[in-house]
Amino acid sequence: MPDANTMPAPPSFPAPLPLTQVMFADTFWAPRIALTRTQTLPFEYEQCKQTGRIDALRLDWRPGQEPQPHIFWESDVAKWLEAASYSLATTADPALEALVAEVIDLLAAAQQPDGYLNVYFTVVAPGNRWTDLRDAHELYCAGHLIEAGVAHFEATGKRSLLAVVQRYADHIDTTFGPGEGQLRGYCGHEEIELALMKLARVTGEQRYARLSQFFVEERGQQPFYFEAELHQRRRPGFFGTRIPQDPAALTPFRQYNQSHAPVREQHEVVGHAVRAMYLYSAMADVAMATGDQSMRAACERLWQHLTTRRLYITGGIGSSAHNEGFTSDYDLPNDRAYAETCAAIGLVFWAQRMAALSGDGCYVDVLELALYNGVLSGISLDGRSFFYANPLASNGDVHRKEWFGCACCPPNIARLLTSLGSYAYAQHDAEAIVNLYVAGSAQFDFGDTTIRLHQQTAYPWAGAVTLMLSGDLPATFTLSLRIPGWCRAPQLQLNGAPVALAGIVNEGYLRLTREWQAGDELLLEMPMPIERIYAHPAVAANRGRVALQRGPLVYCVEACDHDVPLEALLLPRNAQLTAHFEPDLLGGVVVLRGIAHAASWPDQLYQHDMPIAEPVAFTAIPYYAWDNRAPGAMQVWLSE
Amino acid sequence: MPDANTMPAPPSFPAPLPLTQVMFADTFWAPRIALTRTQTLPFEYEQCKQTGRIDALRLDWRPGQEPQPHIFWESDVAKWLEAASYSLATTADPALEALVAEVIDLLAAAQQPDGYLNVYFTVVAPGNRWTDLRDAHELYCAGHLIEAGVAHFEATGKRSLLAVVQRYADHIDTTFGPGEGQLRGYCGHEEIELALMKLARVTGEQRYARLSQFFVEERGQQPFYFEAELHQRRRPGFFGTRIPQDPAALTPFRQYNQSHAPVREQHEVVGHAVRAMYLYSAMADVAMATGDQSMRAACERLWQHLTTRRLYITGGIGSSAHNEGFTSDYDLPNDRAYAETCAAIGLVFWAQRMAALSGDGCYVDVLELALYNGVLSGISLDGRSFFYANPLASNGDVHRKEWFGCACCPPNIARLLTSLGSYAYAQHDAEAIVNLYVAGSAQFDFGDTTIRLHQQTAYPWAGAVTLMLSGDLPATFTLSLRIPGWCRAPQLQLNGAPVALAGIVNEGYLRLTREWQAGDELLLEMPMPIERIYAHPAVAANRGRVALQRGPLVYCVEACDHDVPLEALLLPRNAQLTAHFEPDLLGGVVVLRGIAHAASWPDQLYQHDMPIAEPVAFTAIPYYAWDNRAPGAMQVWLSE
Repeated sequence: MPDANTMPAPPSFPAPLPLTQVMFADTFWAPRIALTRTQTLPFEYEQCKQTGRIDALRLDWRPGQEPQPHIFWESDVAKWLEAASYSLATTADPALEALVAEVIDLLAAAQQPDGYLNVYFTVVAPGNRWTDLRDAHELYCAGHLIEAGVAHFEATGKRSLLAVVQRYADHIDTTFGPGEGQLRGYCGHEEIELALMKLARVTGEQRYARLSQFFVEERGQQPFYFEAELHQRRRPGFFGTRIPQDPAALTPFRQYNQSHAPVREQHEVVGHAVRAMYLYSAMADVAMATGDQSMRAACERLWQHLTTRRLYITGGIGSSAHNEGFTSDYDLPNDRAYAETCAAIGLVFWAQRMAALSGDGCYVDVLELALYNGVLSGISLDGRSFFYANPLASNGDVHRKEWFGCACCPPNIARLLTSLGSYAYAQHDAEAIVNLYVAGSAQFDFGDTTIRLHQQTAYPWAGAVTLMLSGDLPATFTLSLRIPGWCRAPQLQLNGAPVALAGIVNEGYLRLTREWQAGDELLLEMPMPIERIYAHPAVAANRGRVALQRGPLVYCVEACDHDVPLEALLLPRNAQLTAHFEPDLLGGVVVLRGIAHAASWPDQLYQHDMPIAEPVAFTAIPYYAWDNRAPGAMQVWLSE
Repeated sequence: MPDANTMPAPPSFPAPLPLTQVMFADTFWAPRIALTRTQTLPFEYEQCKQTGRIDALRLDWRPGQEPQPHIFWESDVAKWLEAASYSLATTADPALEALVAEVIDLLAAAQQPDGYLNVYFTVVAPGNRWTDLRDAHELYCAGHLIEAGVAHFEATGKRSLLAVVQRYADHIDTTFGPGEGQLRGYCGHEEIELALMKLARVTGEQRYARLSQFFVEERGQQPFYFEAELHQRRRPGFFGTRIPQDPAALTPFRQYNQSHAPVREQHEVVGHAVRAMYLYSAMADVAMATGDQSMRAACERLWQHLTTRRLYITGGIGSSAHNEGFTSDYDLPNDRAYAETCAAIGLVFWAQRMAALSGDGCYVDVLELALYNGVLSGISLDGRSFFYANPLASNGDVHRKEWFGCACCPPNIARLLTSLGSYAYAQHDAEAIVNLYVAGSAQFDFGDTTIRLHQQTAYPWAGAVTLMLSGDLPATFTLSLRIPGWCRAPQLQLNGAPVALAGIVNEGYLRLTREWQAGDELLLEMPMPIERIYAHPAVAANRGRVALQRGPLVYCVEACDHDVPLEALLLPRNAQLTAHFEPDLLGGVVVLRGIAHAASWPDQLYQHDMPIAEPVAFTAIPYYAWDNRAPGAMQVWLSE
């Protein structure tokens, strides 16, 4: 039953197709998703097990024992559960299901009588619940548990975890809010906001959406909660945090977790990049849930700032390891790039919501860019090692690792890969939306009419996509095909006849409304020339440099493909490059080949004459695939 | 009388002409040196006075009083004394002389009965003498006092300060050494080593040279002194120093003050740049004092490493503020360049000694480069504000300051400017050596024969130098004129007749041996085209960029001369640039003018097309003169 205090009916927005209605049968993503199930998820479970993350849920830790449960730990377990649940939604796997059930049992048993569920504040620091919202990640961990509960329910129909997290959410809803005796706080690491929106969706309980909205809108209000909390507690935060004495340090202190201003007054993307992405995702959720135009405007302003000032060409974000986040406009160093895998994943989350909120394909362009580059680089081809930071240049010392003390990225990439189907298609009233081109099929339900859309394509290696319709036809609906921003000259044929695109492409989608017939076949041709990309001249690191992109893939050069040091490589403006699919290289990739120049240089720092350039063979590989062969240097941006 | 333990007679090396035998009458340096006397020295005295540095010498500080004397303070006062003494050597100034006498009286009164002279360890931390050699700068301060005593004696003939510092040096000589009961330590900041060499020279006492050699050779021997000292003291160093637990951190910990290996086994310039320069200067002194070829080889190896891997085009050194020093090969960022003024000054010291040790003008090339660029940028045109760091690019936020808590640079640049005459000429047996071209004159004494050499030149603005001889002529000697490395096509006339240079130019000098006649006149023409300089492609920051140099001066662009943002400026390879002397600009400078291109760019980060270039007026000014007009951005390296 709707709550008495229901918000006004919001406008409706496109919704992702449920994972269960999408099937990938391509050679790019489907094997990666299978690998996530067979390699990554068991491997990550083992890591969680060995490091104590899972057994900590038994609440039998005693002071002095090692390892001591850490405040982050539930979030890693929860993201693993979420990833495993998505996998179970599309592929049965009894062994995985058993592990999931075991962990859910542990979580259920760890839940306190009042619904509270956090190992650290139950066994390590009891009595300190909700006293260190800034540092202790308490609501953040709760958010990940809630997302896991929602995913598990949607994947399996089982309420075992959903019931647990709903009780926890109810406890939090009682504890936090604007009412008498409630805490007017919010988390130092955003996450619970978007989780509560998902919980509201699956339970139909609007109070979770209202709590999310409270957390989002309370953020940055004065007096600043985290400073009041520190004053009151009189002890530094979990990570030793104190309020900076230097007034100049207060702004970055507040910006770090985006609590420097009320969210509608935030104009620039600042602070910790993952935190920022999760907040902006929740802001977009709030804008959709409430129809609030000022919230939408804030989201669009922040998006504009990010994409015109602070975004790596790979879709990576966050220039500095110092704050794991944003620095200043156009400060996009390549070798020192932080570009955390989780931040690129967060950008995918935000972009998906912005696309739904606006109906504009430009947001999916960024989603796709991040997905194929700055996200996918985060995991090795064997699915068992991970980048935390994803630099755009390396001297050869940068390599993926199996695990991290703060292990946010490995399960985060797993949950994105196993849920990728839900990013490919969306539906809105009588509109079927294709956002990503992946061979396979999807099922759209328009009332009683069920339509199946089939894609045949070698995307991302080639830009031709054949789309076929089957199901309850004829039927009238709009088919919206995203025309990626990188595609300059799309062509369409319907049943073999060219279709003029003037007037039917807008906001990044080619929209065809007609009565569709059984056997209708569309051929969308998106030519994929090798594109040279230049950066805004204010990006100091990239002046005089060029990057290569083909379709959605950004390329890089690796030392192991070259006879000269990468630093000596010059790519002349008129260099002829050709694309070749190499089935046995790096799991099958299109490489770019041609002749570049190598500068020969005497052993001195400076000279009057330009270096002499000798022709050398040149090979570029997709950025996501780097560091999967012999360790060595890498560069995305090449001297011209 | 020579000491019984005299070292074997070393070979002889060129010696700088004494300051009193050099007169500058040019429009570039002479006014700057005068300004140092009339503005900088009184201003720095006032700063030392106001901050308590001078009154601290009264030894009347009591616990709780502010300001508390700092371990560095004597070094600032000593460098000021040294600078003032050099100034008094060439220009009478009774007011300055009175200030000098006052400070010397205070120092003499502060000296302890045993010769010890250090305010901090007398009034703030008595009883802790020589217990924190790594951090507490005790021998460093002693070194600067000794240099001041030597300078004051050489400038004035007075022994008032020399006697004080000699007593202090005797105390140190008793305390340190390889003997029973002596400390086998050395200072965490090199300086005393080169000071003791000067003291040995003016006093003729070789024991000071032997003590210097001990300090130099003991450095880096195992067991590592600073670690043994920390273990024994069981308290962190003055700056909180502890021995790193992480073995990987031990190497930079040791390299910071060049104590990671015995000096003859050091192959790379590492650590704190000023410390490194002072050590290498002392190593060159030891090589000259002892004739030790292995020490000379170590100096040459370090020089080679510095100049082919870690030297900014301005002569600045030290890429990182973190350690105020060196990082890795080819790591030469422009905006984050530390390039401390003191480090460039230290490079001048080292280069002068290397030139004497080798007789090779290539060392003076680097001396000149540092002097006219990375040193001179350290002081404003009005002589009253200073750069500590000298970046090669600025977004407009970098400006000189009047003073610093750690005020090493202001008096250091003052002492270099007031002693500059001693860098211009050197003498070696029957050879008169001209190292720097400065209008004015110099007096060489060859036994009973006194020769005066007159220079007429507009250097550094023009490369023509007329040299005339007067004095006890005819006389036979070698006149060696440095041909700067930047000069590709020198020409010489003797009494109006061209002289063929083949065979008489070697190791950077044009050497003419003949019987010189009264009235002989040489015209040396060193054409000064505007040169484009490229950096080794391994210097990531400068790829695709070019710098401009004319004669010894490196140029830069400033925002206030341009209508477009500097980041948009492109200097086409074929851009025609011309040089113009502007008497009213920045104290009179040659500017470079021409037409460059400005890239116009939409408000997006990346695009497929090259930016459209529009012609724009271009002006470059000498690097040293930047930040003397409207605050704004600056760049040395320009996109081509």
